[in-house]
Amino acid sequence: MCGIFGIQGHAEAANLAYLGLHALQHRGQESAGIVSAQDGRLHAHRQLGLVADAFSAETLSGLPGSAAMGHVRYATTGGHGLANAQPFTVEYAGGPLSIAHNGNLVNAQALRDELSAAGAVFQSDSDTEVLLHLVAQARGSSLEERLGEALLRVQGAYSLLLLAPDRMVAMRDPHGLRPLVLGRVRDAWVFASETTALDLIEATYVRELEPGEMVTVVPGGGPFSRRPLPAVPPARCVFEQVYFARPDATLFGQSAYAVRKRLGAQLAKEHPAQADVVIAVPDSGVPAAMGYAQGAGLPYEVGLIRSHYVGRTFIEPQQAIRHFGVKLKLAAVREVLAGRRVVVVDDSIVRGTTSRKIVKMLKDAGAAEVHLRISSPPTRWPCFYGIDTPSRQELIAATHGVNEIARYVTADSLGYLSVEGMLEAVRGEGYCTACFTGKYVAGLPGEPAALRALGG
Amino acid sequence: MCGIFGIQGHAEAANLAYLGLHALQHRGQESAGIVSAQDGRLHAHRQLGLVADAFSAETLSGLPGSAAMGHVRYATTGGHGLANAQPFTVEYAGGPLSIAHNGNLVNAQALRDELSAAGAVFQSDSDTEVLLHLVAQARGSSLEERLGEALLRVQGAYSLLLLAPDRMVAMRDPHGLRPLVLGRVRDAWVFASETTALDLIEATYVRELEPGEMVTVVPGGGPFSRRPLPAVPPARCVFEQVYFARPDATLFGQSAYAVRKRLGAQLAKEHPAQADVVIAVPDSGVPAAMGYAQGAGLPYEVGLIRSHYVGRTFIEPQQAIRHFGVKLKLAAVREVLAGRRVVVVDDSIVRGTTSRKIVKMLKDAGAAEVHLRISSPPTRWPCFYGIDTPSRQELIAATHGVNEIARYVTADSLGYLSVEGMLEAVRGEGYCTACFTGKYVAGLPGEPAALRALGG
Amino acid sequence: MCGIFGIQGHAEAANLAYLGLHALQHRGQESAGIVSAQDGRLHAHRQLGLVADAFSAETLSGLPGSAAMGHVRYATTGGHGLANAQPFTVEYAGGPLSIAHNGNLVNAQALRDELSAAGAVFQSDSDTEVLLHLVAQARGSSLEERLGEALLRVQGAYSLLLLAPDRMVAMRDPHGLRPLVLGRVRDAWVFASETTALDLIEATYVRELEPGEMVTVVPGGGPFSRRPLPAVPPARCVFEQVYFARPDATLFGQSAYAVRKRLGAQLAKEHPAQADVVIAVPDSGVPAAMGYAQGAGLPYEVGLIRSHYVGRTFIEPQQAIRHFGVKLKLAAVREVLAGRRVVVVDDSIVRGTTSRKIVKMLKDAGAAEVHLRISSPPTRWPCFYGIDTPSRQELIAATHGVNEIARYVTADSLGYLSVEGMLEAVRGEGYCTACFTGKYVAGLPGEPAALRALGG
Amino acid sequence: MCGIFGIQGHAEAANLAYLGLHALQHRGQESAGIVSAQDGRLHAHRQLGLVADAFSAETLSGLPGSAAMGHVRYATTGGHGLANAQPFTVEYAGGPLSIAHNGNLVNAQALRDELSAAGAVFQSDSDTEVLLHLVAQARGSSLEERLGEALLRVQGAYSLLLLAPDRMVAMRDPHGLRPLVLGRVRDAWVFASETTALDLIEATYVRELEPGEMVTVVPGGGPFSRRPLPAVPPARCVFEQVYFARPDATLFGQSAYAVRKRLGAQLAKEHPAQADVVIAVPDSGVPAAMGYAQGAGLPYEVGLIRSHYVGRTFIEPQQAIRHFGVKLKLAAVREVLAGRRVVVVDDSIVRGTTSRKIVKMLKDAGAAEVHLRISSPPTRWPCFYGIDTPSRQELIAATHGVNEIARYVTADSLGYLSVEGMLEAVRGEGYCTACFTGKYVAGLPGEPAALRALGG
Repeated sequence: MCGIFGIQGHAEAANLAYLGLHALQHRGQESAGIVSAQDGRLHAHRQLGLVADAFSAETLSGLPGSAAMGHVRYATTGGHGLANAQPFTVEYAGGPLSIAHNGNLVNAQALRDELSAAGAVFQSDSDTEVLLHLVAQARGSSLEERLGEALLRVQGAYSLLLLAPDRMVAMRDPHGLRPLVLGRVRDAWVFASETTALDLIEATYVRELEPGEMVTVVPGGGPFSRRPLPAVPPARCVFEQVYFARPDATLFGQSAYAVRKRLGAQLAKEHPAQADVVIAVPDSGVPAAMGYAQGAGLPYEVGLIRSHYVGRTFIEPQQAIRHFGVKLKLAAVREVLAGRRVVVVDDSIVRGTTSRKIVKMLKDAGAAEVHLRISSPPTRWPCFYGIDTPSRQELIAATHGVNEIARYVTADSLGYLSVEGMLEAVRGEGYCTACFTGKYVAGLPGEPAALRALGG
Repeated sequence: MCGIFGIQGHAEAANLAYLGLHALQHRGQESAGIVSAQDGRLHAHRQLGLVADAFSAETLSGLPGSAAMGHVRYATTGGHGLANAQPFTVEYAGGPLSIAHNGNLVNAQALRDELSAAGAVFQSDSDTEVLLHLVAQARGSSLEERLGEALLRVQGAYSLLLLAPDRMVAMRDPHGLRPLVLGRVRDAWVFASETTALDLIEATYVRELEPGEMVTVVPGGGPFSRRPLPAVPPARCVFEQVYFARPDATLFGQSAYAVRKRLGAQLAKEHPAQADVVIAVPDSGVPAAMGYAQGAGLPYEVGLIRSHYVGRTFIEPQQAIRHFGVKLKLAAVREVLAGRRVVVVDDSIVRGTTSRKIVKMLKDAGAAEVHLRISSPPTRWPCFYGIDTPSRQELIAATHGVNEIARYVTADSLGYLSVEGMLEAVRGEGYCTACFTGKYVAGLPGEPAALRALGG
Repeated sequence: MCGIFGIQGHAEAANLAYLGLHALQHRGQESAGIVSAQDGRLHAHRQLGLVADAFSAETLSGLPGSAAMGHVRYATTGGHGLANAQPFTVEYAGGPLSIAHNGNLVNAQALRDELSAAGAVFQSDSDTEVLLHLVAQARGSSLEERLGEALLRVQGAYSLLLLAPDRMVAMRDPHGLRPLVLGRVRDAWVFASETTALDLIEATYVRELEPGEMVTVVPGGGPFSRRPLPAVPPARCVFEQVYFARPDATLFGQSAYAVRKRLGAQLAKEHPAQADVVIAVPDSGVPAAMGYAQGAGLPYEVGLIRSHYVGRTFIEPQQAIRHFGVKLKLAAVREVLAGRRVVVVDDSIVRGTTSRKIVKMLKDAGAAEVHLRISSPPTRWPCFYGIDTPSRQELIAATHGVNEIARYVTADSLGYLSVEGMLEAVRGEGYCTACFTGKYVAGLPGEPAALRALGG
Repeated sequence: MCGIFGIQGHAEAANLAYLGLHALQHRGQESAGIVSAQDGRLHAHRQLGLVADAFSAETLSGLPGSAAMGHVRYATTGGHGLANAQPFTVEYAGGPLSIAHNGNLVNAQALRDELSAAGAVFQSDSDTEVLLHLVAQARGSSLEERLGEALLRVQGAYSLLLLAPDRMVAMRDPHGLRPLVLGRVRDAWVFASETTALDLIEATYVRELEPGEMVTVVPGGGPFSRRPLPAVPPARCVFEQVYFARPDATLFGQSAYAVRKRLGAQLAKEHPAQADVVIAVPDSGVPAAMGYAQGAGLPYEVGLIRSHYVGRTFIEPQQAIRHFGVKLKLAAVREVLAGRRVVVVDDSIVRGTTSRKIVKMLKDAGAAEVHLRISSPPTRWPCFYGIDTPSRQELIAATHGVNEIARYVTADSLGYLSVEGMLEAVRGEGYCTACFTGKYVAGLPGEPAALRALGG
């Protein structure tokens, strides 16, 4: 997953991009980058690591101009390393151009093969570089026309920002798989993956970009809206609601916090438990756990403490300790757990190894019973639209039933939310649920590209 | 404040010290250091910054031996900088010696002047260096005798670890102001400021060191207990219970989490509010807020989100944004706050500036009323025993009444817990409450040293 | 200028490339990079700075395989920064490919414009990236055919190394402007800009590549020689002999040291001086100064000492001292200079500012007279073939006569070697003397490309 | 060996200290430090590494005031690491004090044991820290009196600078073993180990400090001279003349360059050779080789090239190459050597391993015969006065005759300068020749201290 942020028309554009990226840091911790535009040129700085580590006062002062955009990256496709950090900045016939991309193009490899055969060279593994080639080869006379033309050939999920010396262009894919919002601070227009970035810089939330909408802002003008692609049914990523977005975000028009509490309440209805206390796997499981506790009429307590100091590279002493990883991150509160029947709520189970360690921690701390509740359905299918999930073989729910998983994680009982319950809680139509249902709305890698078909 | 950790008798001593310090990281973020003992020599590494940044696989491998101890520092006395990072390691007549200190000696300056007059030289500003001189000049034949002799001249708060090539000595001051616990993992003995460090390395909690107790462990022997100083009434730091220790710690024999919930419940009794929802200033205010909500019969919600990415050096763009500092750390959940009468619970108010920013954030997010509740009494007096508090002039409660403070922080109402209520909640006798009451049990800087008087 | 090194068929290929680059460090200090090939993949590491700083044991161990090549860069075209560091590594239809280039393509901008118009995107300013596009678009079935086809469109100077997973290809431009030699160590073949790199790794010198020769080596086979381009008269860079190559190199079949001594002896014939002593501007002027002294029958002495510690970034205190730069690098030996009439020999004068500072240093140290002698003709024309010279306006000899220059540098007399004298000393035909004569043998930037014409 | 530099009375004191240390860099590359004085306080920065790497514009700007002194260190006694980097700065009864020391105290361990027994603690292994304790314990009322009193107890070699907030004190030991000069730039007084530092900052050379002289400078006053110790016969280090000082230095009143040429000429007289050419081991052997060539009537040539890029940390690929170390530093010029009978002149032989590698390099490059000539007598005794020599066992000349050494280094002949010849060439009386003769003028480690005896 990734986060993108853009601002056009502010004297401190790069500084605000820096702040905006900090508010999107949970969407990607692998690399951070900012590009600014001034006097017909683009200025860029990208680096591996967190936003606070990637930029210094000196590097920020090397990003002049009143337009800037940035990107935080969590590798989905493409290898790791600086070559894949975004924004990507190139020169093409239209001059300098930079791009920042949240999402994943499913037919990138096929397009890349085609471009290679015609003599193109690639310097990264990223699907985003493919898109730049398509823009450069398009025949349109404006950047917007070129981009529209390029996107006709592309399949998958994307929220995009493009920065040229004279304009910033934002685009959301026709399904609206990834979020993208528009805001306003003083005379400047702001684009961001989440409203959290607007809040930090005290910008006003204007609206979400609509699925398939392209918006241009220029110095002193805009936003100008376009719809270069055929319309398709919306399919917003439900996992953004379940887990990915920050709980204080307003996402797809709803409060992520409220949605998660409802997921928890629904889960309590579907999978009650004879228990003394409800706890969360912090921090992402907290709202659902509170919703579960309220729904079930059980007390909510803090049974696991999250360290403030994770996220840094930590050396793993080889034999010193078992279950090392999760213990560095979480600590059990014995007072809450000892002798109690505990419901522990988490947002999802991927491989099952972490859940297994958590159940063990809770029992080591004295829990009499551990009832694991998951505020989403079993994750059975990999995401090809931008969420970093492992292959099917590694997804425990793809190959094991609920009872088998319960046994593996050593929980006394295990309950997943149903797909229907989830959809009721998110109160949504038009969601992509591919990771739970296998219904891939925007194509699959290796499939013949067919946006026409999808739009037909 | 600082944290200390020691282990004697484990093949991976330095690795476990590294883990132990990570679990004490909340007690000090300025510097970290580890010293190990092997074959008659001490090996040391100290560095500014967090534990994860201060050590690499290479530096850890340079710390051989089966005994090691470490320190994390939050500057209280002494300037900043590497020269003041601990453990301090020196050579004296008894050979190499290293010391790690949590606390603060109130008569350090007077002792330093005396030592200087006799020809001593100092390489840091630290009170701990003074103690090393006293140990070196003591006439005792063993390290324990020398230390006991030196401590007779010293006044203030200290939990100490000393590492010599052949032994580790732990010592808690006669009042027991700072915590220190003993644990066991396999055949090794462990000392730590908090049980959190025992839990992380899967050591068993044995007991607290008693106030005034000195404990020696040697390869294959111990623990040997001594009481080199006259007994005085115990005076454990109540602020460790209110705020400082991690909530999963067992502190002075009680669960810090349970104590804080009781503080909140008591606060609800003393200062009820006509409100719709109770929220916490995360993370330290969470248990008290939950206790308040339960006590008051009000719903507890997450109204403020704490960023996972604070703690790093962050550049402050000059004009980009007001209230910058707190917004980087906390974000308001509009869904919880908008149109609601909100009780917000924090553990203390120091200068009042942060509380003021938080109240503003809550109102900006739509809170109809904001009732600030503090789970401790007004902080009116500086701590001279190891907690980093500013001078009296800067403590808002030292010079302003509760109503004035409420007005300054723009809260609709403000309630502090009473001293009696606090003591009831901590269920304790023998607490130091100097920061709330001005009753300094272990002397003041500039006072004539008088441990005899105190003990008399 | 740049230096390139390649080795095929050695178990420690990357380590030897690292050593080889160290021996070529004088050819470029801005960045260093190595690429290795193993199991169908290329592994790369590039970094700004010197070879010793750019690589660690860890980065070298990330470059496995028995074939490796490297590059040290001194920016000639293209901006500074990591994006322009070489080798460049890309993916194209033929798979992964890496290229290292010493020289400069004069028609790169025209080709780039053409490629852009057809939809190409560029990630650096470098002429070498243009060449990669041409290779990718060529229709040949082998890498060698593609490269030959691409080079038909290219004009300028180049010694090239290309590394693909299955082969290494070396190529020298038809004029042979830049050097490139072939060597052998055990079963491995080695390519290097200078024999200095062969000497360091104890490889045997086999021969120079001939102008226009392409040589392929593959695991267990080669060298296979080809001549894909029409023959043109040779035009080796005379400035490599005068200054650039290390004096211990065997360059274009001759000893650079011997050539430089002959340049000095010839200079003594052309421009004798009534003097007491001959000194050099170290280190590059030393052989010519010794040749001058022998030719003139005057004693040679060390009058200027070169610091061992230059080359590092040095902060320039603002007002502390005048003539700061050159004094950090050179120190005058008063004993040799005081009261003496001094001949000082340098290899060239570019802007004249350094010469002026040196003359002042010598006079400040007591020299009675300073006679400046230059072991090459006046540098009147910029080099477009890979030597980093400033524009014509900045070349003092382009706009000033010898007498004016003598006055500017405050020398008592000034003598340049004649073009004829230089050519006699280098005993060469087939040299490019463009920087002295303006006769550009391989085209000029902006000229219509015309290799056919040149070959015609 | 070490270098020291001090300046009192200049607005850019720290900047000039930085430059001065750069000019003394050859005297120590392990660490660098500067201390400045302003408004009653000292400001310090020390770091491992070269001067250019140890300081940044930021660290220099943290060193305010018009007085500053610095130190470059080459470890002689004391371990490596930052704790032993100088200047040492402490607080004692007289306030803040900093010290920079070139030399070595032979009775430091005895004094340290005595101080330890009285209760002193030490934070480094350095003899210089011992001196600080003696100063702090002295009873004198001024810093000068305290220092004089302290030095009465000390034996060995020292040139010292002490910086207090109100004064700078320079001191040279009674034998004058280490150099120290006084200079003047504008209104400021300058102290430096060598005149090279005066030259770089364009200060005027005033005079050497005399052996046993103490000089004080204060803001607006001085230099005030004192002689606190009994006089002893002078014994300047002859190895400073032979090798250590930079050749452009004026050392002990003579030109180091001229002295070295005379050493070479004398060597030619004592050990002529049937040879075709004379070369030097660069750079230190160059003046003596030129003197030899002139004395012998043989041509001097550059047969070995010294790399400009040594001195950096270089990874040693394990098996890639033999004789790796010396080949990174030196390259042979085949043209000069092939088929020739070569005299190669070096300043000294320590272990013999480097000489052996050099002879091999010369023969590999084709030399018909290699005659090694050393411009000093056999190094048979370790230096205890500040030069970093290995123990006797490792000194090849301590245990082997000249013929055996010649055989070991595989030279066709070997000639060392005689002690008498050396003393004639340095035209000096009052030199310490302990490393050649074993006559230790200033005591030995472990001996009973006896300055009285020496002075008697």
